Amino acid sequence: MIEYKLSEIVAKFGGVLEGADCLISGIAPTDLASTEQITFITDDKYKNDLEICNAAAVILSNKHAQSTKLPKIITDNPYLYFSFVSNLFNPAKLLPRGIKDTAKIDESTEIGPDAAISDYVVIGRNSKLGARCQVYSGVVIGDNVLIGQNVLIYPNVTIYDNVKLGDDCVIHAGTVIGSDGFGYAPDSKKHYNKIPQIGGVIIGNKVEIGANTTIDCGTLAPTIIEDGVIIDNLVQIAHNVKIGAHSAVAANVGISGSTIVGKHCTLAGGVGLTGHIELCDHTVIGGATNIGKSISKPDLYMGVYPASSYKDWAKSAVHVKNLSVMQQRIKDLEEKLHKLLEGNSAND
Amino acid sequence: MIEYKLSEIVAKFGGVLEGADCLISGIAPTDLASTEQITFITDDKYKNDLEICNAAAVILSNKHAQSTKLPKIITDNPYLYFSFVSNLFNPAKLLPRGIKDTAKIDESTEIGPDAAISDYVVIGRNSKLGARCQVYSGVVIGDNVLIGQNVLIYPNVTIYDNVKLGDDCVIHAGTVIGSDGFGYAPDSKKHYNKIPQIGGVIIGNKVEIGANTTIDCGTLAPTIIEDGVIIDNLVQIAHNVKIGAHSAVAANVGISGSTIVGKHCTLAGGVGLTGHIELCDHTVIGGATNIGKSISKPDLYMGVYPASSYKDWAKSAVHVKNLSVMQQRIKDLEEKLHKLLEGNSAND
Amino acid sequence: MIEYKLSEIVAKFGGVLEGADCLISGIAPTDLASTEQITFITDDKYKNDLEICNAAAVILSNKHAQSTKLPKIITDNPYLYFSFVSNLFNPAKLLPRGIKDTAKIDESTEIGPDAAISDYVVIGRNSKLGARCQVYSGVVIGDNVLIGQNVLIYPNVTIYDNVKLGDDCVIHAGTVIGSDGFGYAPDSKKHYNKIPQIGGVIIGNKVEIGANTTIDCGTLAPTIIEDGVIIDNLVQIAHNVKIGAHSAVAANVGISGSTIVGKHCTLAGGVGLTGHIELCDHTVIGGATNIGKSISKPDLYMGVYPASSYKDWAKSAVHVKNLSVMQQRIKDLEEKLHKLLEGNSAND
Repeated sequence: MIEYKLSEIVAKFGGVLEGADCLISGIAPTDLASTEQITFITDDKYKNDLEICNAAAVILSNKHAQSTKLPKIITDNPYLYFSFVSNLFNPAKLLPRGIKDTAKIDESTEIGPDAAISDYVVIGRNSKLGARCQVYSGVVIGDNVLIGQNVLIYPNVTIYDNVKLGDDCVIHAGTVIGSDGFGYAPDSKKHYNKIPQIGGVIIGNKVEIGANTTIDCGTLAPTIIEDGVIIDNLVQIAHNVKIGAHSAVAANVGISGSTIVGKHCTLAGGVGLTGHIELCDHTVIGGATNIGKSISKPDLYMGVYPASSYKDWAKSAVHVKNLSVMQQRIKDLEEKLHKLLEGNSAND
Repeated sequence: MIEYKLSEIVAKFGGVLEGADCLISGIAPTDLASTEQITFITDDKYKNDLEICNAAAVILSNKHAQSTKLPKIITDNPYLYFSFVSNLFNPAKLLPRGIKDTAKIDESTEIGPDAAISDYVVIGRNSKLGARCQVYSGVVIGDNVLIGQNVLIYPNVTIYDNVKLGDDCVIHAGTVIGSDGFGYAPDSKKHYNKIPQIGGVIIGNKVEIGANTTIDCGTLAPTIIEDGVIIDNLVQIAHNVKIGAHSAVAANVGISGSTIVGKHCTLAGGVGLTGHIELCDHTVIGGATNIGKSISKPDLYMGVYPASSYKDWAKSAVHVKNLSVMQQRIKDLEEKLHKLLEGNSAND
Repeated sequence: MIEYKLSEIVAKFGGVLEGADCLISGIAPTDLASTEQITFITDDKYKNDLEICNAAAVILSNKHAQSTKLPKIITDNPYLYFSFVSNLFNPAKLLPRGIKDTAKIDESTEIGPDAAISDYVVIGRNSKLGARCQVYSGVVIGDNVLIGQNVLIYPNVTIYDNVKLGDDCVIHAGTVIGSDGFGYAPDSKKHYNKIPQIGGVIIGNKVEIGANTTIDCGTLAPTIIEDGVIIDNLVQIAHNVKIGAHSAVAANVGISGSTIVGKHCTLAGGVGLTGHIELCDHTVIGGATNIGKSISKPDLYMGVYPASSYKDWAKSAVHVKNLSVMQQRIKDLEEKLHKLLEGNSAND
């Protein structure tokens, strides 16, 4: 069991300890914390939960420090502090080092020291995996793939040829990196003629990619994901896209070809970006919003109007299609009234 | 060949047999049914198809009983009856019992009697699969996974550590259960610091999950899918979501973190639910609708306005952004007109 | 290294050569092309890039022929020509012929001549793969699957029983073909009773399917994808859908059950089609648009209104829900004004 005193935690991560020092063996939300665990308050709405909380201690900000008599660690950023403490008590599982006999690795490929390659992994030619990489079962990696150190690849991931992954990346199960971009030239009969997709993918350091996500290789130049980007599940990133460092891409997002997302951007769940546009740094796109034009001013953008009951929705739905008629009727009214008022004042 | 008399079918599943008894060897839609097959009518619009139908007999409701002179089974719910009869004639294929030599199963893991574990399946430590489970090739199952009886897992599924699955579940190919939730705490430089996702997933009995769907594990407490839930393909279920019993989730749905879906809810294709909201029991959300707030009244909710030709769409599109201006112009008109009418009546 | 003279390229693919003949060893965009490579101009907006371009030659249309003094190939369709030339210089990689020892193929299944079956592929009973098929590692193929010639299947694809694939198809990694359609009959307690999905899937010739896409088998009759269809990543195609020849389906599209898409249609990214509708040939649906009704006139259809900053969006959002009230207010104004004007003219 992992145990730390509150004072040891503060020594590691900073913050101010108030109340009696005690031994902690885990972290849990207020409603689940046992008497040996520390809990945390990140938001006003959870503050009252402390009254019926069994935790041994609390991580919170100065603002909420008076909400409890429990021993507490006061910090400017309780959510970040929670992440530190949770990592302390819940270290990542490590696969047993070594290469399983059933792993099929071309002899031209180099595996770094202390790597773990599980059963039924297949790796192609001229590839290189850095030190301490962990590759789960069913992963298939192509030719000319360069993977940095400490990279963790979960089961059934497929990495095509010519993909470069930096250090400390995590790729969740079922994700596909480097599949062909969707590029075809229609001929005179409107039959599609495939364009080779050979640009590869370059992914920076400390990028985490969720499950069943797809990142296509570029057509001639690479698709690029910069350092520190986090990508959720079932995200589609098309060929020649570039995502700037430390951006966050939530689940079900689709980014069309050649679009550039700036640094520190946030795309909420279900967002769609059309192709060949550019989002400036620090742009935030609200859930399910579709963006059809470049954005040059950092802000929060929204495009989805609130849902209502079918009955209410149906009332509006007929009018949305007729807004230009509605607008014309207002214009007519304004003109008629204006004329009338002019006439009246002329009569005065 | 599987064959049943109409009278045997009625003995099994109820309903009233009208017309001559006969031998049936299958079930098919009205346009495809051969003279040895039974067909079914579930809707007014298919009723006329009976006139040119070769079927030996028909399943239908009392309402449509006069539409045909064929032998018929009359039932209150022809669609449900069709499902019974189709299961009778089309029993699920069973994998050959036994554990293939190439399956890699940690010795601490327990496999129930009469299970079928195919080639190249990998199962971790301290897991348990119940009796008559069927696991197809390429499936990877982690540590501490508890799987009930009669569970069917199709190829290339990944189940992470700490997942619990009830009895009689079906998981389609490529689906990922228990991948890390999308939880990160930004630091002062807006770099993302990963929060361990250790809450696991609990899935009830008789849950069916489609292909390439993703269900994340909870952060500290589990993600929960209750009994009888049906989930389609390419669905994203984020960490700490709870889906109530007997709800249906169609394809391409995304449910954000900590959201609670009630029992007997229906989410149509492409629906998005924002995080930390709650949908009451029996809520129905129409296709592609995005829900941003909790719903406390069971009803059908819609949020997507009808599409039109580009030309018509463009006319409305400019006005949607200017609705508040339009509204102000109406208000101005009302005030001016009111003043004018007051003036007129004062003049009377 | 692959090398061709400009004159050889013109001999192969047509077009008019202007300027000195020279040896070409590859193709690249204007900004990346080296002095041994040919580049291409497909659009006005890239034409000025030629001024600072190092390429040895250019593919372009007559319209842009005067934009550069470089040797050039003039063609009516530079984008199609680019695809020909790119295929010439970038021939597809071929897997080494032969069946790996670790591939598990039922003895009733037939593999055509010169096929390549990689490690850890599993193929069921009574299936047939045509000549020169290439199947990557981790692919699982069921029973009674018929696959034509020259089919390329990337890693970790799952093909269920009763799927038919034509010649020259490409299936990208993680895709699932033939999984059960989402068909259940609710009983009187609103519990879902599964309907067997046994209709299979029929896919034509020269169909390309992206990564992590899902195509369900039909309920009783097959799901059908006709010749020359191109499908991107993370697309959901439900049971009994039919997609007409030479249609294009971009990423994140969801097509609900029994819907029919005509020939030469284009569904842009994120489109949703409701079930049981029909789109006529040559229909184009704009990005993220949801279609709820059949379309009988070929045109471009749109349904998503432009996003704006949160502040502007919020102004409109309140009014979208009240459009019927707004419409009533306009009607009232029109009536009052009409009355007033009638009164005035009566007073004249």
